[in-house]
Parts: sequence; C-alpha cells; structure tokens
Amino acid sequence: MALLETGKYSQGSVLGSVNPDLASERQTASFSVEKLTAWLDGGAEHTRMRRAVVEAIERDPVFSRENQYFQSQNERYEAAVRKAVHLQEKMHEMGWTENGPEFKYIYRAVSGDIAFLLHRIFMRSISVLGSDKQIAKWMPLATQYQLIGSYAQTELGHGTYLQGLETTAVFDITTQEFILNTPKISAMKWWPGDMGRSATHTVVFAQLYVHGKCYGVHPFIVQIRSLQDHSLCPGITAGDIGPKMNFEHIDNGYLMLQNVRVPRENMLNKFCEVQPDGTYVRWGSQKINYFTMTTVRISLISDEVVIPLMKACTIAIRYSAVRRQSKLKPGEQEAKILDYQTQQEKLLPQLAAAYAFHLTNNYLQELFKKGYSEIQKNNFDRLPELHALSSGFKATITQYCTAAVEICLRACGGHGYSLLSGLPSLYTKILASCIYEGENTILLLQTARFLIKCFMAASAGQPVPPSVTYLAAAKPGKCPAKNKLDFLSPDIYTEAYQHTAFRLISSTAAKLQDLIQSGVKKHDAWNQCTVQLVQAAKAHCHYITVKNFAETVEKLETRAGIQKIMKHLCDLFALHGIFSNTGVFLHDGYISGAQMDMVTALYLDLLAVIRKDAVPLVDAFDFTDKNLNSALGSYDGQVYQRLYEWAQKSPTNKQMSPAYERYLKPLLHNTLSKL
Amino acid sequence: MALLETGKYSQGSVLGSVNPDLASERQTASFSVEKLTAWLDGGAEHTRMRRAVVEAIERDPVFSRENQYFQSQNERYEAAVRKAVHLQEKMHEMGWTENGPEFKYIYRAVSGDIAFLLHRIFMRSISVLGSDKQIAKWMPLATQYQLIGSYAQTELGHGTYLQGLETTAVFDITTQEFILNTPKISAMKWWPGDMGRSATHTVVFAQLYVHGKCYGVHPFIVQIRSLQDHSLCPGITAGDIGPKMNFEHIDNGYLMLQNVRVPRENMLNKFCEVQPDGTYVRWGSQKINYFTMTTVRISLISDEVVIPLMKACTIAIRYSAVRRQSKLKPGEQEAKILDYQTQQEKLLPQLAAAYAFHLTNNYLQELFKKGYSEIQKNNFDRLPELHALSSGFKATITQYCTAAVEICLRACGGHGYSLLSGLPSLYTKILASCIYEGENTILLLQTARFLIKCFMAASAGQPVPPSVTYLAAAKPGKCPAKNKLDFLSPDIYTEAYQHTAFRLISSTAAKLQDLIQSGVKKHDAWNQCTVQLVQAAKAHCHYITVKNFAETVEKLETRAGIQKIMKHLCDLFALHGIFSNTGVFLHDGYISGAQMDMVTALYLDLLAVIRKDAVPLVDAFDFTDKNLNSALGSYDGQVYQRLYEWAQKSPTNKQMSPAYERYLKPLLHNTLSKL
Repeated sequence: MALLETGKYSQGSVLGSVNPDLASERQTASFSVEKLTAWLDGGAEHTRMRRAVVEAIERDPVFSRENQYFQSQNERYEAAVRKAVHLQEKMHEMGWTENGPEFKYIYRAVSGDIAFLLHRIFMRSISVLGSDKQIAKWMPLATQYQLIGSYAQTELGHGTYLQGLETTAVFDITTQEFILNTPKISAMKWWPGDMGRSATHTVVFAQLYVHGKCYGVHPFIVQIRSLQDHSLCPGITAGDIGPKMNFEHIDNGYLMLQNVRVPRENMLNKFCEVQPDGTYVRWGSQKINYFTMTTVRISLISDEVVIPLMKACTIAIRYSAVRRQSKLKPGEQEAKILDYQTQQEKLLPQLAAAYAFHLTNNYLQELFKKGYSEIQKNNFDRLPELHALSSGFKATITQYCTAAVEICLRACGGHGYSLLSGLPSLYTKILASCIYEGENTILLLQTARFLIKCFMAASAGQPVPPSVTYLAAAKPGKCPAKNKLDFLSPDIYTEAYQHTAFRLISSTAAKLQDLIQSGVKKHDAWNQCTVQLVQAAKAHCHYITVKNFAETVEKLETRAGIQKIMKHLCDLFALHGIFSNTGVFLHDGYISGAQMDMVTALYLDLLAVIRKDAVPLVDAFDFTDKNLNSALGSYDGQVYQRLYEWAQKSPTNKQMSPAYERYLKPLLHNTLSKL
Repeated sequence: MALLETGKYSQGSVLGSVNPDLASERQTASFSVEKLTAWLDGGAEHTRMRRAVVEAIERDPVFSRENQYFQSQNERYEAAVRKAVHLQEKMHEMGWTENGPEFKYIYRAVSGDIAFLLHRIFMRSISVLGSDKQIAKWMPLATQYQLIGSYAQTELGHGTYLQGLETTAVFDITTQEFILNTPKISAMKWWPGDMGRSATHTVVFAQLYVHGKCYGVHPFIVQIRSLQDHSLCPGITAGDIGPKMNFEHIDNGYLMLQNVRVPRENMLNKFCEVQPDGTYVRWGSQKINYFTMTTVRISLISDEVVIPLMKACTIAIRYSAVRRQSKLKPGEQEAKILDYQTQQEKLLPQLAAAYAFHLTNNYLQELFKKGYSEIQKNNFDRLPELHALSSGFKATITQYCTAAVEICLRACGGHGYSLLSGLPSLYTKILASCIYEGENTILLLQTARFLIKCFMAASAGQPVPPSVTYLAAAKPGKCPAKNKLDFLSPDIYTEAYQHTAFRLISSTAAKLQDLIQSGVKKHDAWNQCTVQLVQAAKAHCHYITVKNFAETVEKLETRAGIQKIMKHLCDLFALHGIFSNTGVFLHDGYISGAQMDMVTALYLDLLAVIRKDAVPLVDAFDFTDKNLNSALGSYDGQVYQRLYEWAQKSPTNKQMSPAYERYLKPLLHNTLSKL
C-alpha cells in the first residue's frame, strides 16, 4: 500500500516503527487513501509520475534540505545555486524538460528551494515581449545558462503602481542607444530575485523618453555583471538587499544605473519600437501579454499556497494525533489533543480549506485554459472576468491559507515554534504570497471594480459574464432551512453565500452612488467605500469557492467512500465560513438567530465526524518525510525522538561557547569555595 | 521639545533631516505629545527617569542591536551573554538595582535582548519556594552570578498539564539523597532558557517518590555543569534545542538526568519537606505561591506584548505617512498610503488597541496590588477572580496584539517583509507569548470555568466577585441607539459588550446543563462546549477592556487635548470590535441591521478623524530610533536611504560568493564569444 511505502523516506535516522497512536488512526479510514491521492493528482497515472520524480530527486543528496534550518543566508544561497545548476544536469539525465509534465513535480519535490527562479521570468519576458530576432538571440543563451537573467521592475519607492516607476531610458539618436538612469534613491530597483549576487543580465523596466517626450514604461535588456569575472559593469551599482523573513536562498537585489548605455536593439520590441530616427511605433494588441501576466497569479496558487497549507495540515494533524496532554476523562490516560473540540476547531477547517482551494485551483486552471483558446482566436471578451477572478482568488486564497498555516503553527504549541517543526518556515514563506504579484488589498479592489461594473450592467438589464450572472436578479427573502440537517444541503448554504455576496455588492454600489449624487467627487467616494468594497470582493470569491466545491462533490462517483468524505469536508468548509462570519449572514435577517444556532450545532457535530478521518485525509496529500522536513509531521509520528536527534545536530551544540571563557568563567571561577 | 530630542538617537548614519511628509504630520497635532507621553508613563517624573535610563543604555556600545538582523544564533547568544554580564557592571555603576524603579526601563531599553532571564526565575523560585536556610545559601551566589540558574519544568512530552510530568525524584533513605531520573524520552526537560549552554544549576520539577509512594511534583535544585570547567556533571545530558522562530539569543535547552543524586536539602522546602526518616510533611498555605505564579502572566503584558505592539504601530504608521503609492486624485502626485481608507482600517484600530491594552494593564496592576495586600492579610477571597482575569487577559491580549503586529507587518508591503523593518522580529517574538506561560486556549477555558461558576452562583442569588456582578441580572431588550451619533456614547457601546458577554456565557451555561441533563457525562459535555466557552471568555475580557477604557477616559482631565483624542481612540476601539464581530451583536437582535449600518458608518468616519493625529499618537510612545531598530520607523522617516545604507552592511554583500567560482563561472565562461 502506498502509505506504507511513503514511510521509507525517513529522515535518515534509526526511526521507522510507526507510533501506535498514529497507526490506530489509519486503521479506521472510511475511504481509500490511495484512491483519494489519485483523485487529487488528477489520475493514478499522475500519481505514479509524481512519485517517480520525487524518488529521483530525494535519492540525490544534492537536493537534501535536512540542514536548511541550521543554515545562514549565505549558506542557503550557495546551496540554492548548487541545486539549480545540478538540476539542469539531473533533468538532462532523466529526460525531463521545462515544458514537460514532470516539471511541476520537480518544483514540488525541491520545495522551491533553488536559485534562478527569476531567470525563468527573464526568459518568459523575452519570449512574450521580445521580437523573433530578440528571442533568437537571447533564448538559446538563457536556456543553457550561459547568462543568468533577472527581472527588474519593482523600485525602492514603487511597487504596485507601475506608471509611477522613476527609472528612465532616454534615446540617444546620435549613438542609437538608450541611456538608463535611476535618478533618485527611490528609483533604485529593489527586490528582484537572482539579482543581488548571481545575475549577469536583467530586464529593466524604465520610462522611455524620445526627444524629451515620455512614452511610458518599457522593458530593456541590460547587462549588469561581466561575463569574464562577474564584476559589476560600468555605471552599475548592485548588491543584496539583506535579510528577509524567508527566502534566504534567494539573492533579492538592488540595482542603481548611472548613464548605462544599451543598444537600440535591447528594448524588447514585440509590441513597439523606437526606430533609428526616433520615431516611436506601436503595433498589435498587448492583450495577450496582459493575459499572460494574469495567469502568473493563478499559477502560484497551487505551488506557493495550497501545497504549503497541505503540508502544514499534515504536520499539525499528525502531531495532534500523537501528542497527549491533560485528561479528557478522569482516570484515563492523557488524551490525544486531536480529541479536544477546540483543537478540532482549529485544524479541521484548515484541512477542509486545503481541499476547497485545491478544487478552486482546478476550476481556475480550466477557466484559463478555455480563456486562452478563445484569446488565440482573438476573442478577448472574457479577459475582464479572468482578470477579476485571478486578482480576487490570488488575494483571498493567499490570505486564507496564510492565516490557516499560522493556525496550524500555533495549534502545535511550543514544538510548533521550533524551526524543526517545519511550520515557521512554511508560515514565513507563505506570508510573502500576500504581498508579491500584487498586494492583496489592491487586487481585491480591482475585483470589486469589476463587480460594481457588472452589478450596474446587470441592473440595467445588460448581459454580464458567467461568474456574475447572479447579480442580475436579487432574490430577497429568507433562508428556507427549518432544522439543523437542512444545512447539509449544498443548495441551502450556497444560496446563503450568494445572497450575502449580492447584498454586500449591491449595498456598496448604492453607497457609492449616494455619495456621488450627494456631490462627493468620484475618487473620494471610491476611497470612502473601499473597506466595504474589499468585503464584497471577498464574499464573491468565498461564494464561488463554496459553489465550486459543492458542484465538484456532486459530480464525484460514489465509489470508495471518496464522495462521502468530500461531502463532509465541503459541508464543513461552508458551515465554518458561516460560523466565522455570522454577522454578514445575520445582518439583513437572511439567516435568523435560531438558524444560526443550527449552523453552529451542525458545524460542531461535523468536527467530530471529520476528526475520525483526519489522519487519512492528510496522508492522502502524500508528502514524503523529506519533503515535509518536519520533526512533528513525519509518517511514523516519532516526534520526540526526532526532535531530540535533530536538535543535537544544531550548530549551537557544535562547540564549547566562547562566551564561557570570556564572560562566564570570570564570574564562576571562585564559586566552588563558597558552596 | 522632547520629540526633536528623540531625533538625535539616529542609526549612526548621515541622516537626520526629517522627511517633509512626516514633518507635516506633526505640525497639526491636536494635543501635546509631551503631555500624552507623560500620562502614558504615569507622570513626567517617570518620563524623565525612563529617558535617563534609555540614554545611559544607548550610549553604551555593548548594548547596540544594530547588527542583530545579520547575526547567527551563535552570535546572538554570545552577544546576549556579553550584554547580561555587562549590564551587572552598568547597574552597579549607575546605582540601579533589580528591585528599583529603573529596572523596567532597563528591560525596555535593551528590548529584552539579554541572557540570564531564566536565572531571574531561578532566583524567584528559590525566594518563593525555598526555606530561609535555602535562601541564605543560594541567593547570595545567584545574585552575584557566581552560579547561573535555570528553571526546568516543561518536558518534551509535557507542557501545560503539570501533573503529567514524568521526571522522578526518589528519596534514598540510606544516603539521604534524592535520585533524579528522566525515565523516558518524553520526560526529557525541553525549552528551559539559559539551560542549553549557560546554566550551572537549575530547579528541576519532578514527581517525588518516598518509599514507593508518589507525592506529586516538587522542585529540586540540581547542578548540571561543573563550576571548574563548565563540563556536564555525571549523569547529565544537556544541550541546546536548536533554531526557533525567534529568541535566537536564548539558549533554550534540553536536559536528561540519569541517576543524578542531590542531597535531601536540595528539595525546596518552604511548604513541605521529606524528613530524614522519609516522613513527608506539608505545612502552611501555598496560596501565596499560587498568587505569585498568576502575577507572572500579568507582568509579561506590558513588556512582551503591549510595548512590541506600540513599536509595530510606530513603524507602520510613520512608514505609511512617507510611502506614496498610486493616485488618490487624478492629476495630483501619488498619495500617502495613510490616506487610503483601507490602510487606515488596517492600522488605526491597532493603534487604538495599543492604548486600550496599556490601560487594561494599568487596571490589572492596580487590581493585583490590591489583591496582594489582601493576601498578605491572609484574605484569599479574590484569588479565583484574579486567576480568571490574569488567564483571560494574558490570552486575549497576547492573541489580539500578535494579530495586530502581523497586520502592521503586512500593511508595509514588501518593505515590511525585510528584517530591517524590524517588524518580522517583533512578530516572531510576540507570537511566542500566545504559547508560553500557559497556552491561550487552555487559559481561556480556565476563565470560562470561573465565569460559568459565577453565572450559576449569580443565578442562584449568591454573591459574586466585582468583575462579574453583571451576570446577576439579565438585561434583555434592545440597544437604544436611535442614530449614528448615539454610538459615540460609552454607555451605549459598553452595554452592548456587556449584553453580548452575558448572552454568550448564559447560553453556553444552558447548553452545558442541557447536555448533562440529557445524560452526557460531565467531562464530555464540557468538551462539547469548549469552542463556545472560549468565545464567552473572550467576550468577557473584551467587555472589561472597553469598560475600563471608557471609564479611564471619563476621569481624564480635559486639558491639553488629551481627553479628546483618547475619547476618539476609545470610540474607535469599541466600534472596531463591534464592526469586526457583528455576528455576536446581531445574533439575538440586540443590535439591529440598521443600527449596525450606523456603527459601520461611524467607525469609518472615525478612521478619518484619528488619521489626522496618527503620527503624533505614535510619537507619544517615545521610542528612540535605536530602540525601534527599524529602517521604516525612524523618527526622521528617511526610509529609502536607511534601507539602502543598512542593506549594504549585510554579510551577503561582504564577499564575492564562492558560488560564482564553483558553479557560475563554468557556465558563463564561454558566453562572451556568442554575444
């Protein structure tokens, strides 16, 4: 059985026998773990491929992450470069390609702990923004790592608001060059990965000036380090931005440009060009480029957000099944902490969320695949909807999952606080996803702008995109649930979510209109509604997530107990959402106080039901011990032995501390005579 | 003026001129910052003393924390020991004593970044639990650091539930010794600070056995390292538990004991003793000891929780006043992010919370002072209430402030994620406060047990302690507010909080009784109510916090604009609590949907009011730049310059990376010919 096979990836210790408290949890699974794993992977074939990739990577000592929690930023960087270079050889050896089906499994297997991720963005930007000639020149070099690229957009003083970038590129007609400058300290490029220490080249985003006229932000390929000795090129100041909350392995960098000249051909010119005489020409539609940028937000959801949450749940739930603390019943032995209602209430909703967002990700992938094929036919109609969904889901899922990982960490008490639990690094890394690729509040406001627009259109009887058709018709009234069990009906709870989203969108639209009609200027009115607009956008995404979960469960075959447990998780996710946001459902009386008591009672009942399958449900995520890299989460549940063995390897135990000789000995040296 | 003086504590850079965006915020303060500072300190005399301490500490380079974010765990430990030893000399030089009024300012000035904090607990446990003879023997040595103590209670497998400790101390009548053992891996002592590398002695908590009978957990003084050469004593295995999310400066340790013998006199015996013949004798009341333990939870609130939140607010709000991003009004320059409603909604409630909990802390200090004087008169009547309040407030304040610091961090976007912002370390440190000194969920359940008991007593017409008299009489009915401005009345909102706390406590008590009456066993019924019991305990503490804030404001003199701004903050804190927890207020219709709309509108209005004074309100916390240790939060607001200068000092910029020679050069060496 696959589960037992997983056990073989142990941390290299003498451990191996499964903690009986954990073993007993697996004996009563209500479903086939192996079948659930295959379903999560999208078929048994994918599971086989994933496991093959994982095995190949984990068998190779270069990819070991065992010392990660002991390493300095410098050591992490060195290891990440080594791994990235080695990975190229490995891929060649295994016959894997960057565009092949294995690639996503490779990224999962190395836990993203490699260098040159921005090099990939460098390549993508050339292939998307570059002309055929530019692609022919740069891509072969980049593909073979004969140069190392980065992507320099964000500045010290400028993140989200691209138009505000201050770096300039002035066209010099006499030399046919662009002269690049970061004229102020706030214009300094700041954050680009791979740039602090590795990159030889980067794509710099700068305000293009020709004959004194500004044409807005454009991308330029700029060499920053010598290919001979890696020293900085003339006019370049660059370095590492220093320690961060995580991503120690990445050399996020800064870059100043002083009269750096690049040839005219270095402006990426698929969509526009400065001709030799200074004429600025623009052609084609950039919409497909815009679409590509949008897909980045979707692509990070699985790798950077949902998988980390699945790991955190695996760690916290396995630990909660072996940790015993206090007595639940007098006279008995101490109870597993997973048997306490409060612990279930912390962890099980996060487990349900991991499944929910896995399915939301599938939904979005499908949607974007369809969108892409439409766009290739030059039909851009669905672009605004796709943009709104990618923004809203990037924001809501990163936010939800970050909070969820933090809950998992805190639910493990003191041991969760040790880096060796793996939870702190999962948390500090996932937290960044709330900020990069669009700050969440700003993204939610973009979704809200779309929703308000659609609401107005729908109110005026105009057609609206599929995901927002519910805005066309208010369905007033009350939740029809008569007793507790009615809330197990997906129709009942999905409609409650829909009603709430509708109410929040329509009431905010009304407030906005009232303000404008009362004479407040449009931009001021918008600002005064933003707190509520954010709420409305979240409610919309929450509704779509619940709806998609319920619809997916309905379509599942009933075999092997999988539909049944997924239905439980769907119910839990939906009811947890109501229980945690009672106010928005109670506000207009759609759900009454008495009905809310039913929701609460049912929600608490469900915790006890799902608790029985909690360990099999995380086993189905199928993480190896090496991949989890956690003293609390290993398959065998030998938590204390593992913590102890691992702690002994810490550098803090490697030597007699110099502090003793310097500071303690002088204090202690004549104590003996007094004792 | 004090504010300008603060500016002189700069990071040692050439900076100094105040960013005009920040300067302008200070010109329009509606109140005297200096007077507010004095009020926060408890009088201008205290402010003077605090500043004198801070100046003496910060002038001394040994206490510098400038390199902290670049240091390894080993380097942090070395520095902390050095500082702790140096602090003794400094205190002697300055005439400060551990019990003097300066001590709390010293701790604030060094930001807790020193070793031997557990040595202090070691001393306190001897003075509280030891006999006069034991005190006479050990205290002089400890006071002069001629031994270094620790406090070994928590085990790998046991935290909260003290009775479950597995370490044993068996009395050997023939040698008049106790034989100490950690018989299983889960019995290993784990976490004690100062124990991993420094301590020579520790107080070990172990199950006492005499003639085969167990007498429960008792404290024993055990030497663990040689006073001659610091090597581990026979039978001792000890070391450092390795990397944690923070507290790198502390050598949290592990300890195994194998037949370690200590003389009979080493059991701390103020309250009980094993006599030479093995007779176990107990005397006196341990209640005062119990009271002392309770006060620890209170004492951490200011230093470890409220002050860190004040720092986080200072950093995030100053940064938000100088960071400009996107345009609020078309055609104007980019707006300060503090002018966005969403940013105000993130930060200003946290600022209000910092003030609220500062006042709650004052309230608790006062209460405990009174409690102590009663207890000294052998009146233990208020002990249950004090225990319930200390548990509940430790849990709610640590939880609230941890979330608040995280909000501050995220509100600063990418720059907040840099360690140089200071926010990550504030967050990772405050997070631990939710776990240590009693895990929060367990503490809240202790508060809940007290509340349920009082509710039952009150319902039966029996007298109850002062803080819960409101449980004696249900006041049904509705919130009387007629229009928005009615919600500025403290009576209106305080009563809403009281009503909610009452409802949650009484309904959970009813559920508990129903379950028991329907045949569910008491402990199962309790477990099935715990999620709601936790909610009830939180609601009680929230109510007391709001009530105390409102009452304090009412008593304030109206001079110097301080009462007015404090009233705004109190209103904001109270209305934010309702806005963020609408469900509990709407549930039974105490507040109607229409009234909730008033609360929302008023709350959003208040944000704009307080925004005007936001910078002066954090200036009043009076942190020096060195104490904040933040590139974003300095008094002069020269954020970008400071980030850049500081980042250059990072060890990641100290050398050409070995990765170049090893991995990159071979890749890049023949690229030149192809370009």
